[in-house]
Parts: sequence; C-alpha cells; structure tokens
Amino acid sequence: MVEKKGAAVFGGDLRQCCLCNLLAQEEGEVYALYFDQCGELDKRVKRVQPDELPEIGLAVFPLPAFCGGERLNAPFCPSPPLWESCLDYIKPGAWVLGGMLPARFCELAKQRGLHVADYYMREELSVLNCIPTAEGALEIAMRETSRTIFGARALVTGFGRVGKAMVKLLLGCGAKVTVTARRQEDLAWARMTGAAAEPMEKLAAAAADADLIFNTVPACLFGREILAGLPKECLLIDLSSKPGGVDFEAAKELGVRVIWALSLPGKVAPLTAAEIIRDTIDHILEEWE
Amino acid sequence: MVEKKGAAVFGGDLRQCCLCNLLAQEEGEVYALYFDQCGELDKRVKRVQPDELPEIGLAVFPLPAFCGGERLNAPFCPSPPLWESCLDYIKPGAWVLGGMLPARFCELAKQRGLHVADYYMREELSVLNCIPTAEGALEIAMRETSRTIFGARALVTGFGRVGKAMVKLLLGCGAKVTVTARRQEDLAWARMTGAAAEPMEKLAAAAADADLIFNTVPACLFGREILAGLPKECLLIDLSSKPGGVDFEAAKELGVRVIWALSLPGKVAPLTAAEIIRDTIDHILEEWE
Amino acid sequence: MVEKKGAAVFGGDLRQCCLCNLLAQEEGEVYALYFDQCGELDKRVKRVQPDELPEIGLAVFPLPAFCGGERLNAPFCPSPPLWESCLDYIKPGAWVLGGMLPARFCELAKQRGLHVADYYMREELSVLNCIPTAEGALEIAMRETSRTIFGARALVTGFGRVGKAMVKLLLGCGAKVTVTARRQEDLAWARMTGAAAEPMEKLAAAAADADLIFNTVPACLFGREILAGLPKECLLIDLSSKPGGVDFEAAKELGVRVIWALSLPGKVAPLTAAEIIRDTIDHILEEWE
Amino acid sequence: MVEKKGAAVFGGDLRQCCLCNLLAQEEGEVYALYFDQCGELDKRVKRVQPDELPEIGLAVFPLPAFCGGERLNAPFCPSPPLWESCLDYIKPGAWVLGGMLPARFCELAKQRGLHVADYYMREELSVLNCIPTAEGALEIAMRETSRTIFGARALVTGFGRVGKAMVKLLLGCGAKVTVTARRQEDLAWARMTGAAAEPMEKLAAAAADADLIFNTVPACLFGREILAGLPKECLLIDLSSKPGGVDFEAAKELGVRVIWALSLPGKVAPLTAAEIIRDTIDHILEEWE
Repeated sequence: MVEKKGAAVFGGDLRQCCLCNLLAQEEGEVYALYFDQCGELDKRVKRVQPDELPEIGLAVFPLPAFCGGERLNAPFCPSPPLWESCLDYIKPGAWVLGGMLPARFCELAKQRGLHVADYYMREELSVLNCIPTAEGALEIAMRETSRTIFGARALVTGFGRVGKAMVKLLLGCGAKVTVTARRQEDLAWARMTGAAAEPMEKLAAAAADADLIFNTVPACLFGREILAGLPKECLLIDLSSKPGGVDFEAAKELGVRVIWALSLPGKVAPLTAAEIIRDTIDHILEEWE
Repeated sequence: MVEKKGAAVFGGDLRQCCLCNLLAQEEGEVYALYFDQCGELDKRVKRVQPDELPEIGLAVFPLPAFCGGERLNAPFCPSPPLWESCLDYIKPGAWVLGGMLPARFCELAKQRGLHVADYYMREELSVLNCIPTAEGALEIAMRETSRTIFGARALVTGFGRVGKAMVKLLLGCGAKVTVTARRQEDLAWARMTGAAAEPMEKLAAAAADADLIFNTVPACLFGREILAGLPKECLLIDLSSKPGGVDFEAAKELGVRVIWALSLPGKVAPLTAAEIIRDTIDHILEEWE
Repeated sequence: MVEKKGAAVFGGDLRQCCLCNLLAQEEGEVYALYFDQCGELDKRVKRVQPDELPEIGLAVFPLPAFCGGERLNAPFCPSPPLWESCLDYIKPGAWVLGGMLPARFCELAKQRGLHVADYYMREELSVLNCIPTAEGALEIAMRETSRTIFGARALVTGFGRVGKAMVKLLLGCGAKVTVTARRQEDLAWARMTGAAAEPMEKLAAAAADADLIFNTVPACLFGREILAGLPKECLLIDLSSKPGGVDFEAAKELGVRVIWALSLPGKVAPLTAAEIIRDTIDHILEEWE
Repeated sequence: MVEKKGAAVFGGDLRQCCLCNLLAQEEGEVYALYFDQCGELDKRVKRVQPDELPEIGLAVFPLPAFCGGERLNAPFCPSPPLWESCLDYIKPGAWVLGGMLPARFCELAKQRGLHVADYYMREELSVLNCIPTAEGALEIAMRETSRTIFGARALVTGFGRVGKAMVKLLLGCGAKVTVTARRQEDLAWARMTGAAAEPMEKLAAAAADADLIFNTVPACLFGREILAGLPKECLLIDLSSKPGGVDFEAAKELGVRVIWALSLPGKVAPLTAAEIIRDTIDHILEEWE
C-alpha cells in the first residue's frame, strides 16, 4: 500500500476537514491547503500554503472536487484556486484522488506523471454514503413533523441504493413502509426486506395514504395531480439529485410541504462521510499494489 | 362507553391542542378552554370562555394538570386559572381526567359528584410515551453529533421502560448498543433484545468506550470520576427525571457535552402524544362500564 | 467466588451432560454421577460412583432435580437413586444447586451444613431459557407446515417471557404477528415491539385469521368453540405448562393440528441450555461472596 | 390478462400439486396431468388423461420442467412422458410456461402456435425463492446443532441473492453474522445490513471462528486446508448449486459435518413455492397484454 505519510488535502467542506483529522491520527504527516477559515482542524494537521508543500505521496481533492468545473470546491477559502493550478504543487509519482474529477483534469494529471483515480466512481462509497443520507432524511422527518416515525405510514419511491437504506432505517424505527418501484424484481426485494411493495402505476394511491414520502427517483414522479391528492399533513422529502422528482411550483401552489434534501452525508455526518472516503481511498491504494 | 360528545379540554400545550383536534375529528362537540394564544386549533373545535361551557360528559386536563400545584398548566393562556376554579364549570356526573392530579383536587372533584381518574397512572400511557421519548433523544443525538447513529457505540444506562424503547430504536438504526443495569434479570432481557449487557459496576469502562450515552436512571450515576473518563467527543443525553443522573457542574468544568432532555413526547411529537392520551382515556372509560 | 474446581453433576439429561463438559473445559475437576448410559461426556469429565466421590465444592442437580419428587431425574441411569441418598456423599460446606428443589430436600441439606439454592428461581435463567423455547417452537412450525414463516400470519397468546421471545423471533423471520393479551400494558408493549395487538376478548377473531398459533397462557383459552373456527391448515403449538391451554379432546375430534411442546430448551439446544445454567450458577456464587 | 380458466398443470412435485390447488381456488377450471400417485390434490382440481384434456389457455410445466432433458419431471407419475409428446395435447394460442425449458422445446412450441415463457428466468422468482431456501437452511441448522441460532457465530460466504436472504434471517434470529465476499461493494452492503464483513482472503480465519457456515458460492471455497481449520463442532451447510462449494471427500476424511442442501423451496415450503410460481406467472401474463 502507498505510504499515507505525506498526504495533502486540497480544500473541501467539513467532511474534508474531518478527513484531515482522521489521516493525521494515523500517524502520517498531513497537510491542509485552502482551509483558511476552518476552525475544526486538529493540531496535528499542518496548514500550508501551496508553495510550502513538501513532496507528498497522496493528494486528496473534495467531492465534488471542483465547483462549476473551474475552481476548487473550497468553501473555507475566500478565493479558491483554478483547478489547473492545483497540480503545479504535486510532484510526479504521487496519487491524486478526488470525487467527480473532470476528464481533462485526469488527463492533465496523468501527463504530469501522477496516478489518478475518482473515488466517487467506487460503488462501496456510494453504498455507504446512503447511510448518512438516510439518517439525514430521517432527522428532517423527525424535526418537521408532529408525530413519531414509529407507526407512521411512510412511502419510499425507488429501490436503488438510497431507497434500500431509507427503507431499512424506517423499518428499524417502526414505520409502516411501502415501496413503489418499476421492476418486479425490486418489488420482490422490497417485500423480502419487510416493506409492502406496489408497482409504480399505483403511486397515486400509495401517496394518498402516506404521512411521509421519501422520493429517490430523479424523474418528475410527483406532478400536480399526485401532489393534489396527498393528505394535508403529508411531508415529502426529495432525495433525488437534480432536477429532482417533484413539480416544486405546483407543490408551492397546492401548499404541499416539500423539502429537497441534497448532499446530506457531508452536512449531517461529516465525520462518518470522511471515514467512508478514507476507507475507499484505502481500497483504491490496496488494489493498485 | 361514555359519550365523547361534549368534551372540554382545559388548557395544556401543543399536545392538548392536538388532542382537541383529534376529539373533534371523531364527530363530537369539543370545547377548548384557556387556549387563547394557540393558532393550531382546528375549526371544528369551539373556543369558549369557562362561563359559556355547556353541560359536558368529559373534561380533560393536561399532563401535568397543574404547575407548581396551583395553577392550570396552560402555556397558551396569559393568566391560567387556579385549579379550584376549574371545577366550578363542570356539572356533576361528568368525567374529569388529567395527568398527575393532586390528591386534594381529586377529593374535591369527587365531593362535587364527578368521576375522576389520573391517566398518567396508566401503565400503557407510560409505555407508549417511551416511543416519542426515544425518538426525541435520537433526534438530539443526530443533530448534535457529526457521525451517523449507524455504527456508533451507544451506551444505555438502565433497562426500564425508557431504556427498553431507547435500545430498540438504537438497534433499529444500526448502533452498537451496550446496556448497563443492576439486575441480572434486566441484563438477560437486554441480551435477548440484541444488546451487549454489563452489570452496573462496569459502568465506568462501558462509558469510556461510548460515542453516545443515554442515561435513564434517576440517580447520580455520572459523577466526576466517570465523566472525566469519557471520550472527548462523547455526547451524554440524560433522559432521567429530576434531579437527573449527571453531576452537571462537574460536566461543565470537564467540558463534557451533556443534554438534559425532559418532557420529550409533548415537544417532539405532540400529535402522537395526543393520540396516546386519547387511547388511554378510551381505555379508562371502557373499563368503567 | 466459590472455586469451581471439584464440582460434581448428579444426573440429568443431555443438558446436564453438556454442563459437565462446559465445567470441565474451564479447568476444574468435574465428576459425573448417574450418567452410565451417556455417550457424550467429554474425556476430561470423570465418571465416578457415589462412594468414589472426593470432597467437592459444588454439587449440581438437574432441572427438575427429581422425578415424581422421589428419585433423581437421571434418564441416563437405569436405576436413579432416591433423593435422600444423594446428599450422603457431599461434605459439609459445599454448595448444592438444582432446579425445582423440594422444600424438604433444601431443609435436609441445610441441616447437613450445605449451602443450597434453586437456580430455577432465578429470573435470568427463566428469561434466557425462552430463547431456546422460542427457537424450538419455530423449528416445529417450520417442519410441520408447507409454507414459510416469512409472511405467515402468526398469533401469539400471552405476552409474558415466552410470549415476548416468541414474538421477537417471529418478527425477525418476517411473520405478520398478532398478540392477544389481557392487560392494556402488555398490548402497549406488544405494539412497541412491532406486533399487532388485540385484547383477549378478540381471541376468536384473531385465531380465525391465523396460519400459526403459539399459545403461552397456561389456561384453557382454546376451547371447542375457538378451535372450531380455526382455518383448516392452521397449526397450534401449545407452549404452556401443564395442564396446557387447549381442549385436546375437542381438537382431536375437530381435526385441529395441535402440538404440545414442553421442555424445549433441553431438547432442542442442550448446549445453550447448559450455558444458561452455568451462567446462572456463576451469578448465584458471585452474589454469595 | 389471459384467462386463468382452463389451466393445465403438467407434472411436478408437491409444489406443483400446491399450484394446482391454488389455481383451483381462484375459480378457474384446473386440470392435473401426471399426478397419478399424489394424494394431496384438492377436489376442485380435475385429474385427466392427456387425451381427455379440453382446450385450455395455460399449460404449466414444473421447475425444472424435464429430467435429464428428456422426460417430464413428474415424480408422482410412474412413467413420465417424453417432452415432445406433452405438446400434442395443447391447442395453438395457449400459453406454455415452465422452468428451465430446453431451447428445442421452446422452438417446437412456438412452431405449433403456442406462447412460451420460462418463469425460472424471472428475477423476482429467484429473489422470492431465496426466502424458503434460507428458512430451509435455518431449519437444518436448528435440527442438527445442540445450540441456539441466537448468539451463534454464523459465517455466510457470498452475498448474492441467497446470501442476502440468509444473512437477513440469521440476524433476525439473533446470530452474530459475518459475511465474506469478493467485492468491496458487497462488503459495504453486508455491513449496512448489520453483519460484519471480510474480504474473501480472510475466509480461513473467519471460518475458524464459526459455529455455523452457510456457503452460497458455487466454487470450491472449502478445500482441505480450510476444512482442517474449522472448529470441531462447526456445521457447514452448502447451499450452492452443483458442483457445490466443498471438497466433500476431504470433509469426510477430516470428520467435518457438511450438509449439501439443494432445491430447498419445493421441499420445505411447497405451498409458498407454489405461490411464488403463481405470482410470477401472473406477472408474465400481465406484461404480455
């Protein structure tokens, strides 16, 4: 395995800050760049300017690595650098790992003799990230409603990774869970898990009978008609990525309570999210050997 | 069963407001007194002044019914009445139900020809109230920590009603749960539930190894010595009734994060808490027949 | 704690044989008496005749210790001794532990300077024994029916120790579980556990809708009328102690399939049952100090 | 949907017999062929000789449909017919559904104007069949060991369909479950489910620490070396299809207890297995419309 001594973390949010702290606990030298306004860094982590960075074995970029495709995703830094410039400080032979890396960035890094990998492409990271996502959604549901999750009628649309994690957690809390999905295979899995399951054609009826709805399908399932049929107190939490699964305008007009919850892992559980990235990085480096 | 038509709800918080709405849905006439500043009452609920109250079959007081033993517990009312005066408006033959009713109040009511019962004395209410208590504690733990409940090392002290509900919920979320309790019998039950179990003498060791601690024992288990041994990031949530189970002063000095969470059901899930009171009232009236 | 070196096990079934083996693994000298025809004893266990027994610290009797109140419960021995004679070989100062010990036996033992305790009186033993009981009942249900436990409609009558363990296991297997019990408090606990719950008055309706029934109440709940209303394929497993909870004659006439399953722990999981006795003995000896 | 009235079931074991009974309950005419020695057929099912069969809409063949590829899989029939001859009695326009249908059979059926589908190719059937498979394996483990599943250290190798169902059931019974799998992604899912997870390279260590092993991988994972390291009392249940996952010869020599459990659904839960086939047939016919 690649020596973790001499790792540099380039920007990111609280999750990457936690990653710095985790890496530093494991005895290596850890350098933090572009964390100027972050007060949570452990003393063992060394804050450096790019031109002070010594030779390192591993450079970690955030998830996503860049905002708008151009600048480093570094909310703790008042003026994040352009992505090209980040590579200037990393010596050939080092590993460059990040999430949602642009193709051009990867090419450029390889040309400079760096090993590059996108940890967001690793299935295990996506799987494990569903745990904080589901917990974040549960926390919202708890905070925003006046009843317990126990005994609540919860509808989960879609039975992919996030849907599976959501269903498991809701059942663990004693909710009455229904899943709607398109494929008979997914409905079979949902039933085995302990949920009721209905084909997607029955979404309107299932939704009309729900206290809580968790959408995980990134397609506009919740149009005006279905929204109009929701119970008055129903809360709809949309966990799907852009463009989301809800006609937000219609929801507003109809007075339906919708919360679009994105990027939950880094927000609700930055430490766990950092552990997941750390483990995934370990797997990438182990497999390389 | 006693006709629920003609019920009056005397004061209380959001939970009693939800109770008004629940009772009104079930077709009877429902009168709300001392809810002046409450905006959540359903239209079907009739707000009345005490002297406008018609003859009713059932008068419901809050939990606890009175504050400081003297005045009605009516946070939505700027000047809650003295408890003696409340009885003046209820005609003989009616039922008077409330929580933690003072003995003198019960006597007085009986002298006036009223049936009186304290719903807080009913075990099923205490049992079911543990569900919102546990969910409220879970919500706090989610909000106040930077890691997921899944995988967290959680310690629950005591294995009474609240302890049991807390353990079940934590296991349902995938936490690694340890219970400390005094009696071998409780440790046996805790093991059967799926938790690890340790006798109370091992509390210090168990606590030193916990990310989250939920205390349910109303005795000062967490003195200075044990507090000093907690992991830096540990969060201690005290669910025990007064005087609580933590040396709060020592905790402050040592920088231990402690949250004393009281009366969670009415705060985190007023609607569910109202349903529990409504069901318990039904049981009391059914058994009377 | 009392030295376990020098323990003697007086008779019993496979469970006590496993207990011999467990005690022998823990380094002490273990003597087995009245196990003549048992082939499962570990080599480390010493088979002795009563008059060969050296001075020991602990004598363990079976559960129940005696059959018909007179002779040692020793199915592996062709002619088990009378209970009085067993005490002749144990020197004063030793501990005598057994299950369901007759009062006269205890008195006699004390007169002879022995410490006596009945491990069957310990609540933790009763609690933990419910696990093998529930598994044994589940195994019967699996073997005797042509459908899966998953998805089966299971009724559990009573919510004491065995009822609780049975419900937990059935829910863990994905059955749809209903509990009938007398007290509102028990129904509240059953609901919290994840089961549906009905008062005992609704037993007939609940039973008429069940694929599997597990009775834990030692009173004749299942009389002719209820038996006549069971679905044709329903299997009734009676876990209650004598006289049982079923009108067996009526069941036979009506063609209802009933299995009266007694003493399951020793039969289905003698090793686990032995571990439970061993742990309980440890607790008794620890508390003595 | 295709009319189920006028369905014929061609041979099969107890599972297909249950299927006859299920179809007959749903009001249609159901004809059973090649069930000569089966005593479990409902009265509503009509036993017919092939040449007595009227025009039907649906012909159901067993799973697998044919034995040795030549003759109908009809254990209740003393001389099952060759597969070609079965088609002679089915009129064009009917549906022919079976499991593991040979390609030549399908071609021939199409040539004769029949609709053909193999229900064994449907993922939902494979998923749901894992429930009786897991329950069957659990029943074996309960019967063949002297300890409870609760608390047992169980190892499941592989985390495909059967592995997932097995892990869920074992966790539901309170076992301590470890999964070994090849892919990090599967290990992540296994962890989310509540099991411990180890990469396949650690199989030997995981196996040396197990009371129960359930193999689901159809490759010889359990060679002589790993078998030699198993605990003396360990029971290995092989759920993998031929050629199995165990060096059976080495196991015999080493005295390792191995049970190779094949085709469990039809054996342990023929009624549930029939329901799964019935539902899958419904899905096939619904999708055709």
